Amino acid sequence: MPKPKLLPGWLTAYHTGQLPGDLVAAMVVTLLLVPQGLAYAALAGLPAQLGLYASLLPLVAYAVFGSSMVMSVGPVAVISLMTAAALMPIAAPGSSEYIAGAILLSLLSGVMLFAFGLLRLGAMAQFLSHPVISGFISGAALLIIIGQLRPLLGIASGGESAIELGMGLVAELGSLQLLTAAFGVGTFILLLFARKGLVQLLTLAGIPAASASLLAKLMPIVTVLGSASLVMVMDWQEQIAVVGTLPGGLPQLAIPAIDVSLVTKLWLPALAIGLIGFVESVSIAQAFASKNRQRIDTNAELRGLGAANIVSAFSGAFPVTGGFSRTAVNADAGAHTPLAGVLAAILVALVLVFATGLFQTLPMAVLAATIVISAIGLVDIKSLLHNWHYDRAEGLAQAGTMLGVLLAGVEVGIVTGIALSLATLVWRASRPHIAIVGLVPGTEHFRNVNRYEVETRSEILILRVDENLFFGNAEAVEKFILRALDAQPEAMHVVLVMSSVSSIDATALDMLDMLNARLIDLGMQLHLAEVKGPVRDQLEHDHFPERLGGEIFLSTFRAYEALGLEVMEELQRKQSQ
Amino acid sequence: MPKPKLLPGWLTAYHTGQLPGDLVAAMVVTLLLVPQGLAYAALAGLPAQLGLYASLLPLVAYAVFGSSMVMSVGPVAVISLMTAAALMPIAAPGSSEYIAGAILLSLLSGVMLFAFGLLRLGAMAQFLSHPVISGFISGAALLIIIGQLRPLLGIASGGESAIELGMGLVAELGSLQLLTAAFGVGTFILLLFARKGLVQLLTLAGIPAASASLLAKLMPIVTVLGSASLVMVMDWQEQIAVVGTLPGGLPQLAIPAIDVSLVTKLWLPALAIGLIGFVESVSIAQAFASKNRQRIDTNAELRGLGAANIVSAFSGAFPVTGGFSRTAVNADAGAHTPLAGVLAAILVALVLVFATGLFQTLPMAVLAATIVISAIGLVDIKSLLHNWHYDRAEGLAQAGTMLGVLLAGVEVGIVTGIALSLATLVWRASRPHIAIVGLVPGTEHFRNVNRYEVETRSEILILRVDENLFFGNAEAVEKFILRALDAQPEAMHVVLVMSSVSSIDATALDMLDMLNARLIDLGMQLHLAEVKGPVRDQLEHDHFPERLGGEIFLSTFRAYEALGLEVMEELQRKQSQ
Repeated sequence: MPKPKLLPGWLTAYHTGQLPGDLVAAMVVTLLLVPQGLAYAALAGLPAQLGLYASLLPLVAYAVFGSSMVMSVGPVAVISLMTAAALMPIAAPGSSEYIAGAILLSLLSGVMLFAFGLLRLGAMAQFLSHPVISGFISGAALLIIIGQLRPLLGIASGGESAIELGMGLVAELGSLQLLTAAFGVGTFILLLFARKGLVQLLTLAGIPAASASLLAKLMPIVTVLGSASLVMVMDWQEQIAVVGTLPGGLPQLAIPAIDVSLVTKLWLPALAIGLIGFVESVSIAQAFASKNRQRIDTNAELRGLGAANIVSAFSGAFPVTGGFSRTAVNADAGAHTPLAGVLAAILVALVLVFATGLFQTLPMAVLAATIVISAIGLVDIKSLLHNWHYDRAEGLAQAGTMLGVLLAGVEVGIVTGIALSLATLVWRASRPHIAIVGLVPGTEHFRNVNRYEVETRSEILILRVDENLFFGNAEAVEKFILRALDAQPEAMHVVLVMSSVSSIDATALDMLDMLNARLIDLGMQLHLAEVKGPVRDQLEHDHFPERLGGEIFLSTFRAYEALGLEVMEELQRKQSQ
Repeated sequence: MPKPKLLPGWLTAYHTGQLPGDLVAAMVVTLLLVPQGLAYAALAGLPAQLGLYASLLPLVAYAVFGSSMVMSVGPVAVISLMTAAALMPIAAPGSSEYIAGAILLSLLSGVMLFAFGLLRLGAMAQFLSHPVISGFISGAALLIIIGQLRPLLGIASGGESAIELGMGLVAELGSLQLLTAAFGVGTFILLLFARKGLVQLLTLAGIPAASASLLAKLMPIVTVLGSASLVMVMDWQEQIAVVGTLPGGLPQLAIPAIDVSLVTKLWLPALAIGLIGFVESVSIAQAFASKNRQRIDTNAELRGLGAANIVSAFSGAFPVTGGFSRTAVNADAGAHTPLAGVLAAILVALVLVFATGLFQTLPMAVLAATIVISAIGLVDIKSLLHNWHYDRAEGLAQAGTMLGVLLAGVEVGIVTGIALSLATLVWRASRPHIAIVGLVPGTEHFRNVNRYEVETRSEILILRVDENLFFGNAEAVEKFILRALDAQPEAMHVVLVMSSVSSIDATALDMLDMLNARLIDLGMQLHLAEVKGPVRDQLEHDHFPERLGGEIFLSTFRAYEALGLEVMEELQRKQSQ
């Protein structure tokens, strides 16, 4: 366990040479964080200013507790969608109960993550497979895109699943507001261009690559401020949906109210939000740490994200986690340490105190376009195709999780994903590899009879089990052995070579006991060979060797020799009778 | 796939020598089946005659499709409890909607099981571990016992979880009806005595053991008929709860009504009932088949139990499966073939046509005592203690499932059980065994450096992974390798010995890719050795060898030789510079 330190390591080792990089990164990240904060608050069904509140203290808390040097914490698309999905059945979006629910979600997931971090449960990130995580995020992103087409085009329709949303869109296409759609589609095209073609165009026009890239990064804030100004100048506030009055000033810190009946409803969604946020954030952190030859401590990540969510709740805001696009911008702009995050928080605070008026006339359609652009980047069809080619079962799990999210929502999607993760695991393990082996002549080695020229005796059946024995494969192993015995009717001894078996669970032990009893009934003996130390200890603790009809041999060769001798004596005895 | 046959194998091979055993067994089983049928119908919240309807055609259907020679199908305690749990939220017990729901549950679970059988999914029985199944059945049995204390003692209270039931009992203890309690407790003591001491007593009294055992088996029907006669003679019908008018005659066969909105509510409980019934029945069938050197075909079992439930629905009755106590009695009384079941069905039909009047004054307290006695036999604390000693994690899973059923009901209990089954599996696999290995001098073998005197080179780190690589252990493997590299800073080559690895999933492949890239960044090379054929195919299909910084060697020894040479040349080159 690391010694608890008063100050984070990066701070005590800080040197002023790191400051310029951190400061530039903070400025660039803030320009992305402000529009994203407003947009993701809208996605979560919350007042826009909460998106900025969630982009303030959580960054500082992560800087103190987290382990990534470049991670940018704050509101992200998938978590905002999950927040909305958890709160929709409980209250009307934007109502005070809804906001109280969002705060409680953030508090609960924060406390759970922080506690998991203290309990050093960081390794649980690995309980979800990559294909399932990727399928979940792609599905959620597609759901977000389909859902955001409504505010983007100014269409009045709703729904929860992709099908409802899609059908609603088509049915209400007539209600499309042209001005809203113009802002939405216009912003979408501008942002797409900023991502795909602008840098090349600017470089072609003679602007240095670094400046061109910086200009492209300014595009989100440019479209936000530009569209807000345009609406104000043209006095279009009444014709299209805009953000509206945004209370200025810093958030009022408050101890979140804890309503027990709400806790019973929200702890499970809070757990899901915490875990998905953690898994998403850790995979981003690891990808960037690997590039910079740094390492991520998953327990510190749990504490960092937990603290970020707790302070988000105290700020009156909603669940946060590490986001991919902002982290990429942060790393790219030269962030050296989490000080960049602290500086970005200060800049967001300045925006809150001095500049909220700028966003009052910002069209919601522009925010929707911002969300759609980020969400497009999350849809990973390439990974689906890759995994499908690599392993059909995992491709199916990935597609199933994606479809689950799309057709039945994020919560069913998570459950589907976990179930599919585990089902592929059990399915794989339930088809154990077993080989009938024989002696390679002139050696003490035993090899598969189907692949090698080996020596065998019809009275001795030797099988090598290449998998741990557990409930998922116990029956299959038993069946294989019984079938092999059917094919070798002269067999008097069955030897199981256990060199690849590191564990035998209670179900598999029951199977061995039943097999042993059955062989004794049939006048045969079951033997084990090459049992690993810990497995042998476990078997002895259970007195299995005393129940075993045969013996436990140290090596397969020794079993083969001893049993061969026994068989010879037995045959001679029979002949002499 | 076996050839479809018009008649079951046991019937075409039937010889008259088997008839006496089958007939005696049928008579003894019927004497147990009638009181159990009435009792389990009451437990399921259904009119008593449905318990007899469920003990009629299902026995014939199983005889045609099933594979066990001695299995006795019919109503059983755990499945009746699950039926009640599924229907309670939908309708009032005994109402026509409730009965329609029970019929639909039976139809749905029957169709699903039959379909699984046709799809040859019998192996799915192994998706639940023995400790979890045992914990589930023990928990359900305890829940049944606590629930039946109410009718047994004549106390008016109810509840769903063990705590509610228990607290209700204590609170309402004052409402205990003495006469009811006398019948309940009296029957309980008689039946307990019949199980434990009666046979010894009768043998001591000079009665031959076989007759004594038969007399003990008559006790359930004796208490049923005796108590019903006593109530009739004493005219106590008004003072205690009795079975009441039991419609005589055979059930009216009818095609079950299929209400789509009811199907959406009941398909999941029906699946749970079908699977638990299947798992319970198969384990009973296997235990008895093993004693008689027969084999159970799990797909035939699926079809047999599926057909039994389908005809139970057509008879207007509720879900059935194989029961332990009746199967034991059947086997014990000398049943040779499923004809015993067909004969028992005929005897139950005779009871229905001629003898329902006998049960009209049967006290419900006597049925409750019958249920409690069977349920006590299902509580398996010995297995809990055994598994706890054998493997702490599995003991916890068993206790957790049992507590889940007791505290939150059968449905939460099943989900808890499946989750715990899989969690123990992932937990075990997430702690992979990895060893740093070295060359055993004078051989080509490599062994763990911590256990053997082996030869190593500081420039080459050789690790043997003893587990399949998958999402649950990918991170742990990576961490182990990085830590080993920290401890061996001169290492230039990392060799992974893959002799125990039968599969690498997409998540683990991502890990290998990231590890490979990281090592290339650090100026090192990752190599693989002893890769199994199918794994090698999969890696090549994904073009991994092209991305790999190092090589794939056929044997560890060859890797050690080749890399040793490379290291020597490298060092000489450096020295000569």
